[in-house]
Amino acid sequence: MLLLRLRRNYERCRRQLLLLKPFSTTTAAHFDLPLSHPTYTVWGSNTSVGKTLVSAGLASSFLLSDSPSRFLFLKPIQTGFPSDSDSRFLFHKLSSIYQRRKPPLSLLASDHVLNASLPVINSDATDVAMCDLGRYEEQRLLGDQSGLGSRLICKTMYAWKEAVSPHLAAARESGPLDDAVVLHSLRSCLAAGLGTSGESEGEETRAMCLVETAGGVASPGPSGSLQCDLYRPFRLPCLLVGDGRLGGISGTISAYEILKLRGYDVAAIVFADNGLENEVPLNSYLRNRVPVLVLPPIPTDMTDDLMDWFDNSQNVFDSLKEIMLSAYSKRINRLREMPKRAMNAFWWPFTQHKLVADEAVTVIDSRCGENFTVFKNHDNEFMTQQFDACASWWTQGPDAALQTELARDVGYAAARFGHVMFPENVYEPALECAELLLEGVGKGWASRVYFSDNGSTAIEIALKMAFRKFSFDHGIHDAQECNAEGQRTELMVLALNGSYHGDTLGAMEAQAPSCYTGFLQQPWYSGRGVFLDPPTIYMHRGKWYLSLPVGLQPETKMLESAFFYSRDEVFDEKRDHSDLAGIYSAYLSQQLSYSSKSKSFLGALIIEPVIQAAGGMHMVDPLFQRVLVKECQNRKIPVIFDEVFTGFWRLGSETVAELLHCAPDIACFGKLMTGGIIPLSATLATKSVFESFIGDSKLQALLHGHSYSAHALGCTAAAKSIKWFKNPETNQNINSEGRSLRELWDENLVYEISLHPAVKRVVALGTLFALELQADGSDAGYASLYSRSLLLKLREDGIYMRPLGNVIYLMCAPCTKPDTCTQLLIKLHSKLEEFISDSRESLKSCHS
Amino acid sequence: MLLLRLRRNYERCRRQLLLLKPFSTTTAAHFDLPLSHPTYTVWGSNTSVGKTLVSAGLASSFLLSDSPSRFLFLKPIQTGFPSDSDSRFLFHKLSSIYQRRKPPLSLLASDHVLNASLPVINSDATDVAMCDLGRYEEQRLLGDQSGLGSRLICKTMYAWKEAVSPHLAAARESGPLDDAVVLHSLRSCLAAGLGTSGESEGEETRAMCLVETAGGVASPGPSGSLQCDLYRPFRLPCLLVGDGRLGGISGTISAYEILKLRGYDVAAIVFADNGLENEVPLNSYLRNRVPVLVLPPIPTDMTDDLMDWFDNSQNVFDSLKEIMLSAYSKRINRLREMPKRAMNAFWWPFTQHKLVADEAVTVIDSRCGENFTVFKNHDNEFMTQQFDACASWWTQGPDAALQTELARDVGYAAARFGHVMFPENVYEPALECAELLLEGVGKGWASRVYFSDNGSTAIEIALKMAFRKFSFDHGIHDAQECNAEGQRTELMVLALNGSYHGDTLGAMEAQAPSCYTGFLQQPWYSGRGVFLDPPTIYMHRGKWYLSLPVGLQPETKMLESAFFYSRDEVFDEKRDHSDLAGIYSAYLSQQLSYSSKSKSFLGALIIEPVIQAAGGMHMVDPLFQRVLVKECQNRKIPVIFDEVFTGFWRLGSETVAELLHCAPDIACFGKLMTGGIIPLSATLATKSVFESFIGDSKLQALLHGHSYSAHALGCTAAAKSIKWFKNPETNQNINSEGRSLRELWDENLVYEISLHPAVKRVVALGTLFALELQADGSDAGYASLYSRSLLLKLREDGIYMRPLGNVIYLMCAPCTKPDTCTQLLIKLHSKLEEFISDSRESLKSCHS
Repeated sequence: MLLLRLRRNYERCRRQLLLLKPFSTTTAAHFDLPLSHPTYTVWGSNTSVGKTLVSAGLASSFLLSDSPSRFLFLKPIQTGFPSDSDSRFLFHKLSSIYQRRKPPLSLLASDHVLNASLPVINSDATDVAMCDLGRYEEQRLLGDQSGLGSRLICKTMYAWKEAVSPHLAAARESGPLDDAVVLHSLRSCLAAGLGTSGESEGEETRAMCLVETAGGVASPGPSGSLQCDLYRPFRLPCLLVGDGRLGGISGTISAYEILKLRGYDVAAIVFADNGLENEVPLNSYLRNRVPVLVLPPIPTDMTDDLMDWFDNSQNVFDSLKEIMLSAYSKRINRLREMPKRAMNAFWWPFTQHKLVADEAVTVIDSRCGENFTVFKNHDNEFMTQQFDACASWWTQGPDAALQTELARDVGYAAARFGHVMFPENVYEPALECAELLLEGVGKGWASRVYFSDNGSTAIEIALKMAFRKFSFDHGIHDAQECNAEGQRTELMVLALNGSYHGDTLGAMEAQAPSCYTGFLQQPWYSGRGVFLDPPTIYMHRGKWYLSLPVGLQPETKMLESAFFYSRDEVFDEKRDHSDLAGIYSAYLSQQLSYSSKSKSFLGALIIEPVIQAAGGMHMVDPLFQRVLVKECQNRKIPVIFDEVFTGFWRLGSETVAELLHCAPDIACFGKLMTGGIIPLSATLATKSVFESFIGDSKLQALLHGHSYSAHALGCTAAAKSIKWFKNPETNQNINSEGRSLRELWDENLVYEISLHPAVKRVVALGTLFALELQADGSDAGYASLYSRSLLLKLREDGIYMRPLGNVIYLMCAPCTKPDTCTQLLIKLHSKLEEFISDSRESLKSCHS
Repeated sequence: MLLLRLRRNYERCRRQLLLLKPFSTTTAAHFDLPLSHPTYTVWGSNTSVGKTLVSAGLASSFLLSDSPSRFLFLKPIQTGFPSDSDSRFLFHKLSSIYQRRKPPLSLLASDHVLNASLPVINSDATDVAMCDLGRYEEQRLLGDQSGLGSRLICKTMYAWKEAVSPHLAAARESGPLDDAVVLHSLRSCLAAGLGTSGESEGEETRAMCLVETAGGVASPGPSGSLQCDLYRPFRLPCLLVGDGRLGGISGTISAYEILKLRGYDVAAIVFADNGLENEVPLNSYLRNRVPVLVLPPIPTDMTDDLMDWFDNSQNVFDSLKEIMLSAYSKRINRLREMPKRAMNAFWWPFTQHKLVADEAVTVIDSRCGENFTVFKNHDNEFMTQQFDACASWWTQGPDAALQTELARDVGYAAARFGHVMFPENVYEPALECAELLLEGVGKGWASRVYFSDNGSTAIEIALKMAFRKFSFDHGIHDAQECNAEGQRTELMVLALNGSYHGDTLGAMEAQAPSCYTGFLQQPWYSGRGVFLDPPTIYMHRGKWYLSLPVGLQPETKMLESAFFYSRDEVFDEKRDHSDLAGIYSAYLSQQLSYSSKSKSFLGALIIEPVIQAAGGMHMVDPLFQRVLVKECQNRKIPVIFDEVFTGFWRLGSETVAELLHCAPDIACFGKLMTGGIIPLSATLATKSVFESFIGDSKLQALLHGHSYSAHALGCTAAAKSIKWFKNPETNQNINSEGRSLRELWDENLVYEISLHPAVKRVVALGTLFALELQADGSDAGYASLYSRSLLLKLREDGIYMRPLGNVIYLMCAPCTKPDTCTQLLIKLHSKLEEFISDSRESLKSCHS
């Protein structure tokens, strides 16, 4: 009978089969999860611990409260169907419970099954993997017939016939089912299931929703992903059903900790007593973390209708429900008040607090791979997703899988090492990380790794190294501090205008004056460098142009062309033999003669190779930088590459030295080095730089260090990330030689955007896509708010960007799928259109 | 029969009952774990998964290899005894397996039970909790009788009668058994069990040892601690017996991840097939991490003697054994080569590499609470424990329990947040941490938290804040950069000689010239401050003395006394009304008149409150600092407290402002703030400091930030640690008012040490005990190697210290037990004796 009905439904549905569109976990504008009512996931610490009994008990406790209410029960994955159906179980049990009530109460209950594998309906069709079943069963119970009673909606989302683990059932009956498909359907059910349609329309109805998982917390889902990973993007609050049997303490704690290690919050643990008093150690261990509740023993007699058990469990389920409702309220209230509290406690860096309104503060609930989950309370309250296109200050690298790996590895490192003293010691993560750096970004030139905490400290260390090496090579000693005329020996850097190396004083002194260096910002800044204007390269209207600074222009009139047909041409080493190379060389020789003057020496060259990031995402002509490096090295001026931004695939290769075809003496790395979850930096140096610190006294050593030098957590995260990014198995963007990333930004779209009238220039390289908006006067420059309206539009569309004045950029992770990048570009392009027409409107209204 | 024997043994043993001495997990000089052969812990992903079958199979595979060998099987915790005895099971099964071999092989097998609860032997005695049983059973099998055969030793260490979880059995039969006792016995068994005593003496014998746990990984042990926590100090490599049943994938992965989250390494996972192909998802999930092996299904017929099963499993056990042997060899080889590789790859901070020999490099395997586990290869190879008395550059706070908590919380934060963008955003860990800081160390004065990465950056930020506030209050604007004579406006700090604020240039500029600031170290250093000599306080021969700098001496001749009878007297606020207070005030007024000269202003006071740490652990007279703060604040010179070292209970109170009885305008925190596992720092400021950055333009904001500002992992660790340290439930050193730590350093011992002729001065405060060794000439000062021999002795004795030249110190965690501190002092005192007599010897031999 049931089978017949199923088959009939299927035949009907088959005629209107819809192709399931995979849910995109990347830029997902339609991620929105409602927060208008509590939604919990029910997890089991093992299979057969009674998850569905708990779901049923909660449904009963919730629905039987006085006001009319709605309860949605979702079973995304069901195997053993139709003989096993947890949603049908719930539907029937609740009906029975209601029928026993005197006087009878009103309840409209329904059970649905949405999709099933073909064996479920004994179909001989072979053309589809899962079929849209749309089966529906409904029951209106006695009582008030006015339609104002409560509502129970039970849904099985995907069902397979065999009573085995979902990954096996799927493999045998339907082929694996993509995680994104499951999440997409789940979101639809969550949004639709408690909507205002139906009898309670127009009325404030209490509602609750449970999503019940299958098996244990780490049981595989139908794609083979563990369920704790599968459901992670939604990060719904959890209810854990523990295990009261022998071994159940261990199983329950393990399940709890695995959920935590996936970033979930567990509101309560509940389990059925088995006479072992498992709650005593559980309560003692989990004290102050999560409440533990105990249900009466579950009858072992299979014919028991459980009605007595439900009666006896009522008070436990009532408590559990209260705990869940109260956790929900607390969470919502906390989310609501966070912006205000943040505005009272934080002092944000690089932020003019006067310009930030309470409602402009973004409440970040969590991140999953490249995406933030953000709390919104526009008309109603919900969670939505935004692609982290600022890569959280250019640090981000993990996709969801790497994030989970890093969580486990960092947890392990904390448990194994915490932090341990570095000097004169060795421990695994520091050694592995150092060796990976020397074999990777330092390959062929570096022989030592000096760890510190961030880009600024890495730069300060690099400068100390370079100056010592320079002094050593040029015979400058402490004793000679002054010459005969009493003039102090002074060491300066050679650097490029527009470069940026960090915010501590030493790092700032190595950069040209800018808005960061004025008296109001840093009264101690003097700018201890010779700063040259670099030639830059950018794309405009589909071509790559070379822009030469004033100092270089006269000599280059004879240059035939100042543009390139492709980016590859820009990086081509053949340019070494061009006229331009000779012009650069002559110009630099002249500039470097500075160092022969008086007692001032150019003791180091420091550059951001290829891209000057904070300065506005400017691409410097790689030929110019290569010539510069050679001219300095010829004069024994140590060369520092500041790869804090550029390193670790940010620009498409592990180190930009590879793009420049030349090696530095010293290089600094940070940001992406740990994958983007924890601060750590490294200054790499050649053997000869290291040797200039060797001597008989400690006073000759490099006396610079920070408390957490080479801390185990950072080194562990770095070792994992470095390997992850360069391994084609884990990073599908790595090309066959393992030397560079495939092109992430669609060439046609980049071309298209470069043609846009609002766009002054474009740079696309590796994980970076940047553009400068056409802007004049106060609209241009760092403090400009010109791009704000464009960025607000993009946030509404699921992209979180931050501007550098009128320069804006999209930045993805080294392993972001090119499809995602394409979506980002499409959205950007479309919002640029709106931005321009808005500007025209406002211009028009000004003139009228 | 068995019972009779047991009882007889007990009666014998009872006469010579030894009080079990608890194993100290703190300074443990006798921690040594041998590495001469592989030792593994066998864990179960659930109860009844066949751990003992796996142990038996491994024993068989190992012993049946050609050469004579020894196999030690330890069962530390056995319940259900004597009817259940895993060690007896192994003993019997191996005997059976041997007996079936043709020709028969030689094996001397024995089974022991060392301690049992009274119900085990049906004793009516009530006087002891556990009795030393010493039962022993031996069996020599047929075969070669020469005594050169193999040896199987099986031992049950602690046995209880009831077949329930050990925590229940212990509670009911013997009272809880301390973890330290179990570990102590386990170590003895590990050391004794495979010693060279017995028939194979003098011969190279292959050996292996298994320690089999009880129940699942997180099942409670006899004290109630989870077994994964109980055994953690030894961190033995693991073999995990997985679960082939339904739900077993989840259970196995959960168990694996829990072991990782305790810092264990898992060499292999093995489980018995149940027809569910659990190995497929396990292998896919654990690929590249740990091998997964599958055994044939275990016969369900209880009468089966399992001989066929063992035969059929032979090849799996052989593979498993090979994996374990090879993992062991790899580990040992890695440990051996780590010093050399470290010497080739690392550039250690503050280290003259020329002075470090390969053999002086400490290989740190792990840390557990306050202790390092260190690899030694003196005569033979072993792991030993050293108390981290340098607190890993003063960062350390966790005991073993907090370390586990931090591992879980940091793992959770990584999984939930990774790192997310801070400015204009809010997320839970940053908000919680900021609010805890404002309610804690900032209480009563601070209104804003500015996050950065380390002490140096926190200081650079503090200086920028102070200078802006000063400029704001004193009407200094950017436009007035030069006065009429073209003289630039210059802002300087007021600071104390001997202070240290970090290694980046800005932080260094705020400190007086020292060995860190010369041209060779930092050619850009100029010392932008007025540096005053502070009066210091120290203990010598049992009294606290005040030492006045030259500048203050003339005026103070009238002082009646320059010493104090107690430390409390030093900190007493009543001193504000003393003559000395007036003298300080007059002196400082005179010094502060500097700021009226020309265009140079003293724009900030910066001090390390109470203890100048890197400068040599000098205690500055708190009265002097209090007067200094008041004089500055009266002149609207912002006051910065550098609490990077002193904050978070380092000196016995959460903030040293409490000891000084005055508040700063700005304060910097770092190091202990995260408990000591991850870099994070914070600069706190008053409302009025914050307001001096408010304006209409972003350019007026504080433009200083680092990539990982307020990173979620650091803020999570900080929030946990801040709460942990101040909560009397988790930190038993917190006194009743919750304002200070109880005295950790035994008064008499401190007194005793202060009398020692080798000791010039002593300071004991909070978690710090420091002493200066009497030294002259090149023996004194930062670069001195004078203390080296003393510190090497102490390392051999289980204490890892680092010197500041001839100043040495012991530093514990805020929750270290006073007993542990006492042991540290006793050892230090005793080694001081040796140090002195060695010095006398060497002096004598010089003269002779």
